[in-house]
Amino acid sequence: MDQINNNLTRVAVIGASGYGGLQTIRLLKDHPFFQISYLAGKKTSNKKWNQLCPFLPLKDDPTIQPINIEQIASSSDIAILSLPNGLSAELTPKLLDSNIKVIDLSADFRYRSLSKWKEIYSMVSSKTERKDKELCARAIYGLPEWNGSNISKANLVASPGCFPTASLLLLIPFLKQGLIEKDGIIIDAKSGTSGGGREAKEHLLLSEASETFSPYAVIGHRHTSEIEQELSLVSGTDINLQFTPHLLPMVRGILCTVYARLRDPCLTAEDCKIVLEALYRKHNNIEILPVGTYPNTKWVRYTNKAQLSVQVDKRTGRVVLMSSIDNLLKGQAGQAIQSLNLMYGLDADMGLPINNFYP
Amino acid sequence: MDQINNNLTRVAVIGASGYGGLQTIRLLKDHPFFQISYLAGKKTSNKKWNQLCPFLPLKDDPTIQPINIEQIASSSDIAILSLPNGLSAELTPKLLDSNIKVIDLSADFRYRSLSKWKEIYSMVSSKTERKDKELCARAIYGLPEWNGSNISKANLVASPGCFPTASLLLLIPFLKQGLIEKDGIIIDAKSGTSGGGREAKEHLLLSEASETFSPYAVIGHRHTSEIEQELSLVSGTDINLQFTPHLLPMVRGILCTVYARLRDPCLTAEDCKIVLEALYRKHNNIEILPVGTYPNTKWVRYTNKAQLSVQVDKRTGRVVLMSSIDNLLKGQAGQAIQSLNLMYGLDADMGLPINNFYP
Amino acid sequence: MDQINNNLTRVAVIGASGYGGLQTIRLLKDHPFFQISYLAGKKTSNKKWNQLCPFLPLKDDPTIQPINIEQIASSSDIAILSLPNGLSAELTPKLLDSNIKVIDLSADFRYRSLSKWKEIYSMVSSKTERKDKELCARAIYGLPEWNGSNISKANLVASPGCFPTASLLLLIPFLKQGLIEKDGIIIDAKSGTSGGGREAKEHLLLSEASETFSPYAVIGHRHTSEIEQELSLVSGTDINLQFTPHLLPMVRGILCTVYARLRDPCLTAEDCKIVLEALYRKHNNIEILPVGTYPNTKWVRYTNKAQLSVQVDKRTGRVVLMSSIDNLLKGQAGQAIQSLNLMYGLDADMGLPINNFYP
Amino acid sequence: MDQINNNLTRVAVIGASGYGGLQTIRLLKDHPFFQISYLAGKKTSNKKWNQLCPFLPLKDDPTIQPINIEQIASSSDIAILSLPNGLSAELTPKLLDSNIKVIDLSADFRYRSLSKWKEIYSMVSSKTERKDKELCARAIYGLPEWNGSNISKANLVASPGCFPTASLLLLIPFLKQGLIEKDGIIIDAKSGTSGGGREAKEHLLLSEASETFSPYAVIGHRHTSEIEQELSLVSGTDINLQFTPHLLPMVRGILCTVYARLRDPCLTAEDCKIVLEALYRKHNNIEILPVGTYPNTKWVRYTNKAQLSVQVDKRTGRVVLMSSIDNLLKGQAGQAIQSLNLMYGLDADMGLPINNFYP
Repeated sequence: MDQINNNLTRVAVIGASGYGGLQTIRLLKDHPFFQISYLAGKKTSNKKWNQLCPFLPLKDDPTIQPINIEQIASSSDIAILSLPNGLSAELTPKLLDSNIKVIDLSADFRYRSLSKWKEIYSMVSSKTERKDKELCARAIYGLPEWNGSNISKANLVASPGCFPTASLLLLIPFLKQGLIEKDGIIIDAKSGTSGGGREAKEHLLLSEASETFSPYAVIGHRHTSEIEQELSLVSGTDINLQFTPHLLPMVRGILCTVYARLRDPCLTAEDCKIVLEALYRKHNNIEILPVGTYPNTKWVRYTNKAQLSVQVDKRTGRVVLMSSIDNLLKGQAGQAIQSLNLMYGLDADMGLPINNFYP
Repeated sequence: MDQINNNLTRVAVIGASGYGGLQTIRLLKDHPFFQISYLAGKKTSNKKWNQLCPFLPLKDDPTIQPINIEQIASSSDIAILSLPNGLSAELTPKLLDSNIKVIDLSADFRYRSLSKWKEIYSMVSSKTERKDKELCARAIYGLPEWNGSNISKANLVASPGCFPTASLLLLIPFLKQGLIEKDGIIIDAKSGTSGGGREAKEHLLLSEASETFSPYAVIGHRHTSEIEQELSLVSGTDINLQFTPHLLPMVRGILCTVYARLRDPCLTAEDCKIVLEALYRKHNNIEILPVGTYPNTKWVRYTNKAQLSVQVDKRTGRVVLMSSIDNLLKGQAGQAIQSLNLMYGLDADMGLPINNFYP
Repeated sequence: MDQINNNLTRVAVIGASGYGGLQTIRLLKDHPFFQISYLAGKKTSNKKWNQLCPFLPLKDDPTIQPINIEQIASSSDIAILSLPNGLSAELTPKLLDSNIKVIDLSADFRYRSLSKWKEIYSMVSSKTERKDKELCARAIYGLPEWNGSNISKANLVASPGCFPTASLLLLIPFLKQGLIEKDGIIIDAKSGTSGGGREAKEHLLLSEASETFSPYAVIGHRHTSEIEQELSLVSGTDINLQFTPHLLPMVRGILCTVYARLRDPCLTAEDCKIVLEALYRKHNNIEILPVGTYPNTKWVRYTNKAQLSVQVDKRTGRVVLMSSIDNLLKGQAGQAIQSLNLMYGLDADMGLPINNFYP
Repeated sequence: MDQINNNLTRVAVIGASGYGGLQTIRLLKDHPFFQISYLAGKKTSNKKWNQLCPFLPLKDDPTIQPINIEQIASSSDIAILSLPNGLSAELTPKLLDSNIKVIDLSADFRYRSLSKWKEIYSMVSSKTERKDKELCARAIYGLPEWNGSNISKANLVASPGCFPTASLLLLIPFLKQGLIEKDGIIIDAKSGTSGGGREAKEHLLLSEASETFSPYAVIGHRHTSEIEQELSLVSGTDINLQFTPHLLPMVRGILCTVYARLRDPCLTAEDCKIVLEALYRKHNNIEILPVGTYPNTKWVRYTNKAQLSVQVDKRTGRVVLMSSIDNLLKGQAGQAIQSLNLMYGLDADMGLPINNFYP
């Protein structure tokens, strides 16, 4: 591997050549505390890394391995899984049994309830036979800003994806503080095409996906229930909300525009901003923008930052909450590394980019 | 001009080199009933057209004229004004006095109430001295699908822009039929950069505006009040709604995602689709998509078509309405030509593209 | 089909859902002389057209047929084949035997010499057993501006693709007139991603292909030999040239920059422009730009136009020739329709767009 | 300034808000050896930095100063000038007189001969009265890979821009080694829009510059003479070459495709690759790609890397040389920081990004 160093903690990256795997490898390559000790993948096993990814050469040009529990166990301290849904649920119990900690980028352990997972991921579920109900219940939802102390003690972290991250960072504070009504929350979400992954699909071709914009999965998108689960936990009551994803003609970035009704109509945008600032004070990667300045995905691209902004419309009594993140870093691999840092007692931001190059 | 033909009605295009003017000229160039009889502009006066716009050569390579009422009156039957706000209000009364009909692409005559216009366009208003209260009151709001018979008799049409068009085509049917609640309507709108015009501005440079997405003017955008005016008229009650525009990293297209609460929770998406189909049956340029198929700006780019789609979320009792249009055609010059057609007793769609080339 | 009309000549489109097929159908849909009488495809057979291509609805929503020679013969007068290389060579002899004329968009009949084809398309060749040497020799290379009279009498036209078209329109005049040296010609060519087709491939994903630029197939690209064949015929001597394609981060358009040494060092750019004008005078779709104005793919997008421009560098004795076309129209389906028009004695430009919408 | 630290060398950045200034500030912000001690600009003076550039906040939110020699002298050890041509020539002699070293990003000191500069930059020259002939002659051309030892001793470095850098890195080795003929060199160059700067210009608007590609300044582009100067020095003979720039529909990146005739027709691409490898062995930021792998601007975006590749066409006796760089880093500010590092005895790559995030 790139750096064989006895002082560095050993991380296996499983699912190496998708966008999640790529970002994970990129981040670990420069990390002062971790080293990549094992690279494995399904489709790409037995290929040389540098030929597959000439844009991200690794020093010793490792061969991508077939996925093998014993080899992971003998080579690594922790595994980051960037695999299709369903496959992680197969591997994770075995890895934990071998005393390998797991950070999972898939949806397999994001639901406290296995039956809820089976309902939402019914297609995948029909092809697997999961009986890890207990494991689901004790997996830690890896949103470091809100779940940091649990993550630091976890051996299984279910790292959330881009839409839930961008939504929850906005809504948790307002629901926790009881500032907005629980009914009528609307999340209008927009994602770049890299959120659709690296597998070749017609609708993600440049010829098809550039110079256009459209909604998809307008009701019942999978992430709705995941967001609702977390918000219900925070607010202590069932949350039902509207979530509409759209596809943006660009590579990286998510922007969420969230609408909710203020419980106190006298609250100003400045008040709301102060609430956010107070709650995120300790988190360098969360930037609360001045009232009237709005998030811009270009400002957070290639960083692990989240930009948040609030506006209040007195006329309608509504608050408009906005967030932007890089869907592959704060919305995926960067967030996983935040959890990894916390699990090893490090500063959550270690090794994660905060400043990018503009434009 | 391109075609000097005694059988064709003569149209003056004032404000020739902005995107509105360009599209207008492009559409008139091929129109079977109209000819461009006069081209004028402010910044570009005295320039040869073909040098300025080599991508849209006109047969006799006309020189762009300074704006002159008498020349318009002697050369033309009707004028299409594509000018900055405020300037149209100066010219229009004089043109009407000279018996020249006017289709105005600016906001100057979109408000029934001059004082409302002065409130919303206060910056412009402070530099002009408008006293044409009556003219404002009798100008016809040029949404051909809903105002066709008035337009056909009008001598002054205030042609609406892209955001109101995309929003009103969705909301008028539902408010007119009393299908949605009047409170809590949210319009989350997204526009390509050509909506910002052709004048060079830093934030619209490709280097700045590509590969990014952000909201702007989150509360109090000018078009909010225009949309509210029309919906209040339709519904017979004051409508206050939320309107949030966003800038898309692409050239042409607007997509609106509209959220409202259904009054009858038993209404299905199919029911709503049938309502739209019934109301727009006569309008070939309005396409109602099957339930589950969503508008896509690429499908309507370079056409005068509007695509509409409805989805209903039983869980939340909300209807999600979606529309896509080409912001420079159905959202600007194409719509003006629809009005022009109606004013001369022609089919509204004459000379307007309905099919485009994909991709 | 869209228009069943006894007065219209019947065209079968075989290979309906790739980009070539799509453009062909789009152009025929509005054509005043032809009708689509039969739609067939391999992957998409038995699917309803309007569901597959909601952006280009056909009136009677035809079902795409499996490819069947007898059905083509009974329903159509001519077939346009937009199929992978190799497949056309199987079908074409049978179609001709059934008295169906053929316009072929593939490379199968672009070489006068079957053995040259076998050399260049060795991969495809190894899977087929072509013995149609004679047919190759008498197929007409479908460049309408240079081969019009042959095309008008042909029953088999091999329609050239985007790179050869953009290159030959520039080089044929200069070689034919003996104005440039035969050695040392360089074609630096750039194409949008739609040139790579509609099949999902990783490197053509928006995430991969946007915001980047790179050369590919730097020596030995297939089109080199095709261009050389045509130029050798024109000049009566063997031409060996350099051809380097590059992939542009955009959908449609090809631009070729061609470098050659002038035989007469006193020739000016204006002289060269006059040569081009004289040769292309009859062809409305060929636009010779003023010296100092250069082709721009946006100016020809969605049209069947070619823009040509010449510049001369006295210091180096070189002429720089530049062309831009829409790769899917003049570089593919539009060019095929030009041939179709000629084969039926029509004006070459009939039904083909010349003006587009800017921007 | 961001870091007031007595151990860090103090750098003034003059011309702070253009793209060159922005990248310089971004790179210095994280640099372990330098600190930004003074920020000045013309248009933006007296503005607060963080309001102007919210995407690159500096710790103490400095106010941009008007350009003042004395203040630069009292606050800084060296100045990096990112100013329009002509302005640097005014400031630089005064700065040097005040013992402030200068790295100049403009073209003012890139020509050994002042009279050549006056010829090429005649417009600017007509507005200034330069008499600094001697200074021109002793300014060091800041291409660190070829001029490193001179740069390390310089007090005035003229840092070359993107096109010359991408061209010279390819051509110097081949001319120096006498591997290619001196006549007939062709550089076909392609640049993203950020090369046109941050000033708002119509042709660089996203609406105009996206989804299009075109050449510009086809003969006589300014950089031709600069490239010729350096190559003439290296080869000891006058070089006259063809240089054609094109504008790419993307933000960052330059790709040059260079054609030349090999003197020894037996040389293979592998041979040429070995030559490049040998010459650039010490330079970590220069990556020589395997034969058959071609540069891709996305692979070097946001890095200070240059990717070089060679291909040989036996049929034509030509070598095709290709390079890609980030036009704002290796092609501008990154290269300046390389020189800065060398001037202070540091490793040329210190503080410069080599790996980016893909895609």
